[in-house]
Amino acid sequence: MKASMIPDIVVGRLPVYLRALQQMAQENRQVTSSQELGERLGISAAQIRKDLSQFGEFGKQGTGYQIQYLLEQIREILKVDRVWEIAVVGAGDIGSAVARYGGFANRGFTVRMIFDNNAAIIGKRVGNFVVQDTAGMIPVIQNSGIKIAMIAVPANEAQEVADQLVQAGIKAILNYAPLSLNLPAHVHVQYIDPVIHLQRMTYYLE
Amino acid sequence: MKASMIPDIVVGRLPVYLRALQQMAQENRQVTSSQELGERLGISAAQIRKDLSQFGEFGKQGTGYQIQYLLEQIREILKVDRVWEIAVVGAGDIGSAVARYGGFANRGFTVRMIFDNNAAIIGKRVGNFVVQDTAGMIPVIQNSGIKIAMIAVPANEAQEVADQLVQAGIKAILNYAPLSLNLPAHVHVQYIDPVIHLQRMTYYLE
Repeated sequence: MKASMIPDIVVGRLPVYLRALQQMAQENRQVTSSQELGERLGISAAQIRKDLSQFGEFGKQGTGYQIQYLLEQIREILKVDRVWEIAVVGAGDIGSAVARYGGFANRGFTVRMIFDNNAAIIGKRVGNFVVQDTAGMIPVIQNSGIKIAMIAVPANEAQEVADQLVQAGIKAILNYAPLSLNLPAHVHVQYIDPVIHLQRMTYYLE
Repeated sequence: MKASMIPDIVVGRLPVYLRALQQMAQENRQVTSSQELGERLGISAAQIRKDLSQFGEFGKQGTGYQIQYLLEQIREILKVDRVWEIAVVGAGDIGSAVARYGGFANRGFTVRMIFDNNAAIIGKRVGNFVVQDTAGMIPVIQNSGIKIAMIAVPANEAQEVADQLVQAGIKAILNYAPLSLNLPAHVHVQYIDPVIHLQRMTYYLE
């Protein structure tokens, strides 16, 4: 099946499968099944088999999936069989936490630089980085060839930062600011806003 | 339509509509339309009308939606017309950033307490809170009546923390640890893992 034909909702489950497979590999497991994966993830085994079958034949009837093989295949499909560099914009609490986060290693990403527009923060260290001035961000990102950015600035600054990132050649944005961004169709965006997740749960609470 | 009949994917879009409406209200806007909302959010107007119609009649043909009225209705539907208290477990970078986060105000949530199991951190201040010992967490949460928790501990500690939170009466968990939790059916869970979002985008990059 052509990549463009596969629904985004299916693509969105592959990283969850990959995370579970990497965890199993760390537990020195060799083989798993759609049943076991499904129990770990709260997804039906049939759904997992159907999702994976859209990308190829990864297991044999009755013998399950070779964990190492399947995780390498998914890493290749998701293009995280390499390391993508990330620019972080905003060196407040959230930007700093992301810049110092140890959880990117072995999952395809590394933070490479961090920017802020606050004179009191520019030049200070955050983890392994010296905070750079957002004012000079566009050429720095262009020259670096970085294609992925995270926005961790206040909501009222986020759209302007996003516009600058697009100018700088960024193709994918993970936005921590609590608003929807207006972006050209060729730029991918994902959102992290804890309140959105919390409100989705309170609906169901007494 | 009965609450239990509405698909979770529809429920999951209401917080996004609410966030956009609150932003419009801050801009002193009075009226909006499904077209305008759709353009802001990158969702079709038809989808927005269909989603909202599952919960009631909120607008009149040709006159659009009264912003203040619609946002109050959605706040009531999502049960964020009140303030929910939150317990944060893990006072590392992410837990501390969440505990200090100013973005919960006016959106239905407030952090009330934070826990950690690291003796070097217990008793220290994080924002307005003194970090409490995770070892005493269960009765403290039980006595508080708090129903919502965030987990921001290392992946290998997260399941044990989740089990303790369930014992403490927690009904909804926002999990920042990068793994899927095994929880009883009556406990709601949502996940925040930046790598999952990033991998969903690299799939589409050259």
